[in-house]
Amino acid sequence: MVKTEVDFTYRSKATLTAMKNRGLLLTSVSQDGKPNAMAIGWGLLGTIWRKPIFLTLVRPARFTHKLIEETGEFVVNVPTAKMADIVNYCGTVSGSAHDKFREKKIRIVPGTKVKVPSIADCPVHYECKVIYKLKIDPSTLFGDIKELYKDGEYHTLYFGEILATYAEKT
Amino acid sequence: MVKTEVDFTYRSKATLTAMKNRGLLLTSVSQDGKPNAMAIGWGLLGTIWRKPIFLTLVRPARFTHKLIEETGEFVVNVPTAKMADIVNYCGTVSGSAHDKFREKKIRIVPGTKVKVPSIADCPVHYECKVIYKLKIDPSTLFGDIKELYKDGEYHTLYFGEILATYAEKT
Repeated sequence: MVKTEVDFTYRSKATLTAMKNRGLLLTSVSQDGKPNAMAIGWGLLGTIWRKPIFLTLVRPARFTHKLIEETGEFVVNVPTAKMADIVNYCGTVSGSAHDKFREKKIRIVPGTKVKVPSIADCPVHYECKVIYKLKIDPSTLFGDIKELYKDGEYHTLYFGEILATYAEKT
Repeated sequence: MVKTEVDFTYRSKATLTAMKNRGLLLTSVSQDGKPNAMAIGWGLLGTIWRKPIFLTLVRPARFTHKLIEETGEFVVNVPTAKMADIVNYCGTVSGSAHDKFREKKIRIVPGTKVKVPSIADCPVHYECKVIYKLKIDPSTLFGDIKELYKDGEYHTLYFGEILATYAEKT
């Protein structure tokens, strides 16, 4: 199906629901053009600094962290329910050791505003450029969230300005 | 119209659209029970730490900042288009000097999971408890965002766990 450029709010409900229920696919790319994909279940969507923003959280040990640090870009892809196997795979193996695209026959399309490719079979993409980042500050964590960081691997929060949103018109 | 408890994603598209186009109303309350409301145009909605989250940004000079620091709670209310005058007023005067509820005849209803009241005429409310906060770090700001902080008043980012969402069923 053909995708067209839409406002970031257009499929926001479907995006937040999919993220909560089955995860989204975040793509990134190395400086020499090799793409990677990871599954994400955490993220926020909205407006800050008068810009549309997708906030994603990535642990420093992830290969994706290295790629976003290098390029300052990422794409959030919303998979269909049928793509659960791909989401699961991308959440299990590391792009440092696997070419997930080849192994799972994931078709990509070039980004229009970023160098990061999008996943062709996902009906919605958000092309993002990092405009701000913060690290989780261990000194201000409390309660059951603190329990999630027992390994000391504190997320980087990447505030991605959504430069373009593409969606299949429903 | 009667509101019922719904999943936080239920009216998410309308919430993000209203925030972008005309602003939302954030309510808070002092320790002795006096409510306040401010207009917000910036915020993010989604899932982090396996919890529904509304992230709001408040400058330390705001009266709301003092109240959230005291109570750790806030409510995000989505106004109708007819309430533009109230949003404008709540974005113009400070709750430290004005009782906006009396002056604008804003009707409130008690929170169910938080001490902060909701605004009765808003069709959607998110009752939130702060579970994490971070301050904007001036050392990592760049580009046109940095220009927004010329006064040195850096926002506090409040990550509010959405304890309950209420909406009119459409």
